[in-house]
Amino acid sequence: MWSLVILILLSLFAYILTDELIYKLQSLFINAGLFGIDLCKVSKEKIYFHFSPEAIGVISGCVFLITILLFIPIGFGYSLMDRGNFPHHEFAELLAALLSICCMLLLGFADDVLNLKWRYKLLLPTIASLPLLVVYYVNFNSTTFIIPIPLRQFFGISVNIGFLYYIYMGMLAVFCTNAINILAGINGLEVGQSVIIALSIILFNIIELRGDQYKAHNFSLHIMIPYLATTLALLKHNWYPSKVFVGDTFCYVSGMTFAVVGILSHFSKTVLLFFLPQIINFLYSVPQLFHIVPCPRHRLPKYSAETDLLRASRTVVLKKDMPLLTKVVLRIFTSLKLVDKVEDKDGVILNNMTLINLVLIKLGPMSEVQLTKTLLVFQIFCTCIAFLIRYPMASYFYDLNIYNNFVS
Amino acid sequence: MWSLVILILLSLFAYILTDELIYKLQSLFINAGLFGIDLCKVSKEKIYFHFSPEAIGVISGCVFLITILLFIPIGFGYSLMDRGNFPHHEFAELLAALLSICCMLLLGFADDVLNLKWRYKLLLPTIASLPLLVVYYVNFNSTTFIIPIPLRQFFGISVNIGFLYYIYMGMLAVFCTNAINILAGINGLEVGQSVIIALSIILFNIIELRGDQYKAHNFSLHIMIPYLATTLALLKHNWYPSKVFVGDTFCYVSGMTFAVVGILSHFSKTVLLFFLPQIINFLYSVPQLFHIVPCPRHRLPKYSAETDLLRASRTVVLKKDMPLLTKVVLRIFTSLKLVDKVEDKDGVILNNMTLINLVLIKLGPMSEVQLTKTLLVFQIFCTCIAFLIRYPMASYFYDLNIYNNFVS
Repeated sequence: MWSLVILILLSLFAYILTDELIYKLQSLFINAGLFGIDLCKVSKEKIYFHFSPEAIGVISGCVFLITILLFIPIGFGYSLMDRGNFPHHEFAELLAALLSICCMLLLGFADDVLNLKWRYKLLLPTIASLPLLVVYYVNFNSTTFIIPIPLRQFFGISVNIGFLYYIYMGMLAVFCTNAINILAGINGLEVGQSVIIALSIILFNIIELRGDQYKAHNFSLHIMIPYLATTLALLKHNWYPSKVFVGDTFCYVSGMTFAVVGILSHFSKTVLLFFLPQIINFLYSVPQLFHIVPCPRHRLPKYSAETDLLRASRTVVLKKDMPLLTKVVLRIFTSLKLVDKVEDKDGVILNNMTLINLVLIKLGPMSEVQLTKTLLVFQIFCTCIAFLIRYPMASYFYDLNIYNNFVS
Repeated sequence: MWSLVILILLSLFAYILTDELIYKLQSLFINAGLFGIDLCKVSKEKIYFHFSPEAIGVISGCVFLITILLFIPIGFGYSLMDRGNFPHHEFAELLAALLSICCMLLLGFADDVLNLKWRYKLLLPTIASLPLLVVYYVNFNSTTFIIPIPLRQFFGISVNIGFLYYIYMGMLAVFCTNAINILAGINGLEVGQSVIIALSIILFNIIELRGDQYKAHNFSLHIMIPYLATTLALLKHNWYPSKVFVGDTFCYVSGMTFAVVGILSHFSKTVLLFFLPQIINFLYSVPQLFHIVPCPRHRLPKYSAETDLLRASRTVVLKKDMPLLTKVVLRIFTSLKLVDKVEDKDGVILNNMTLINLVLIKLGPMSEVQLTKTLLVFQIFCTCIAFLIRYPMASYFYDLNIYNNFVS
């Protein structure tokens, strides 16, 4: 327990250091051409373009990594005295976690600087998760899914999906790293949602500390606490009106961090529950991501200088290039009232399919800060649902003793 | 042994991939503002400025890292089948090595993009080497120096320097990462010297494969072979006339890779022998690095368009700001004939103190490619001396059986 206390103190220090470094190093980023233009701000008569340093997530990411590196000799200090019984497998777990996170930090920063193509963004997280999977194989190799009670008459108590479980975990890493990145674009949203997910995981870990799997949850806490500290420092600067932008770096590091604790502390399915808004956003985006519906380069909401409000941005689908699949998809989304569609003789105009735009068409135009707050309240609401599913409902669908042993 | 064969095949593939990616991704680097101007080229009447992408070392570094990541399931494949006896400590060793290298890749790239201050360049490699030191402590913790026979009457057979040994290893990481970086600046030199050092280490590993420590040397080979493959691909593009520049990224990754194998395969002192030219360059540079003698921002040799030759660049020391220490240092270097000095009434003009300039004042002006070749021949010569010290002379100064067990 004292190791947690030291970690919290170290994390406090990490918070202060991140905050300080973001102030100090901003000019380096702008000099290197790493800056963004914030279009959603107005200053009296004319829109004023706000240049903010971009990819600042690399600062919080590095401090996060360094905090854990510095903690290694402390965390394993007790074990270091008794070298014969040193927990090599736990140490390997931590190293694999750090390696995966460091790889994503590198990939994210390279992406911010070089604007990598999509294929690299999908391929590299898969490779970066390889050490995780090997550690998982060696230390646990539990590839069994417990079947919910109502379905047991068809599948039995559990199903061992073997190798498929590793593919699932590799895809989890790819999904988590990209899911935050596509629910982004307005001040404070990327960092805000990550803070809420991190807090949810920490709460879950604390609850489970009293269970059988306390070691795994203790491990997760040791990663999440420094992550939360450095991310809060970033949020301070990234909250509306943003003084810095976080870049892909931050989204990748965050996603990989959540995937890492989910995999190594074996609660990957619970982590996915905390990603509910991201999953909804991803599913809703699928028609545009796979170019069934035309996808402009940016799908950010549109800023109106007159009202200082954001409204949903739109895309045009010409009737002449509308294959059957597009028609079917549009009909389904329209009948579910998930798109705001205007038809004219040449084609249809509909909102870009992101959760951000969906909120705007359902609740009407709102200011940027209000939009961020609305989306974060939705994220918190989803966390509550996740805990509801995880606890009361799981006891209905699962025999909890078995569940805790296998699938938490 | 079959694992080495697979590794060599993978490394061949890594060579081809690196070569291909350097061609393909160059424009990304130039678009991101990562390019350098090569001043040492002439085209008929006027000097033509050659814009080449900078920081290309990040490509070879990433392919190097990915090759080892992909090799993990193969290399540990045999052990994976018998999970009860999985060599957790060896796996942790590899992960720590990869983590340190990945950290340096990130730091190097951040340095190329952001131009970090010197203090970060010294601090971060130290932190990045922490996991290495913990692994060393847990797996070996041999902190004993064997005393050469002539000195044993004073110190005994061996001296255990304990904690100091860890400081030595941490400093080794810092030294290696920076030593290559300061013996640099002419086409092909950074990569050329790294290839020679890598070949020297591989040769040393192969010789020692038949010894007691074959496991450690086998480990080293598994890191050095993919390193060599990706670096050779880089050399192809970086050799005179350079089409790409390698950046700090490459120097840091190379230095850390050599430090990693030196530390984890416990031949850190032999690695230092292979760094002889870098050590000479560092010692020779000390007066300028510590500002005892004025140090201009660039100490590269000076290019003369008329002759197409390079000559030593020079710095001016004014008599009025020449403290005692500077005078003493200049007198020592002059009497050792290590500087080319011209005095006038205001002060002295002397060559910048780098090994590159030293070669130019001793052998006279020469073309850039000839200068690189000369320095690389010197590197090979030093490798020969290193092997001479390591083998015939060590048997004179040390009882070889003890030596091999403790200090190889």
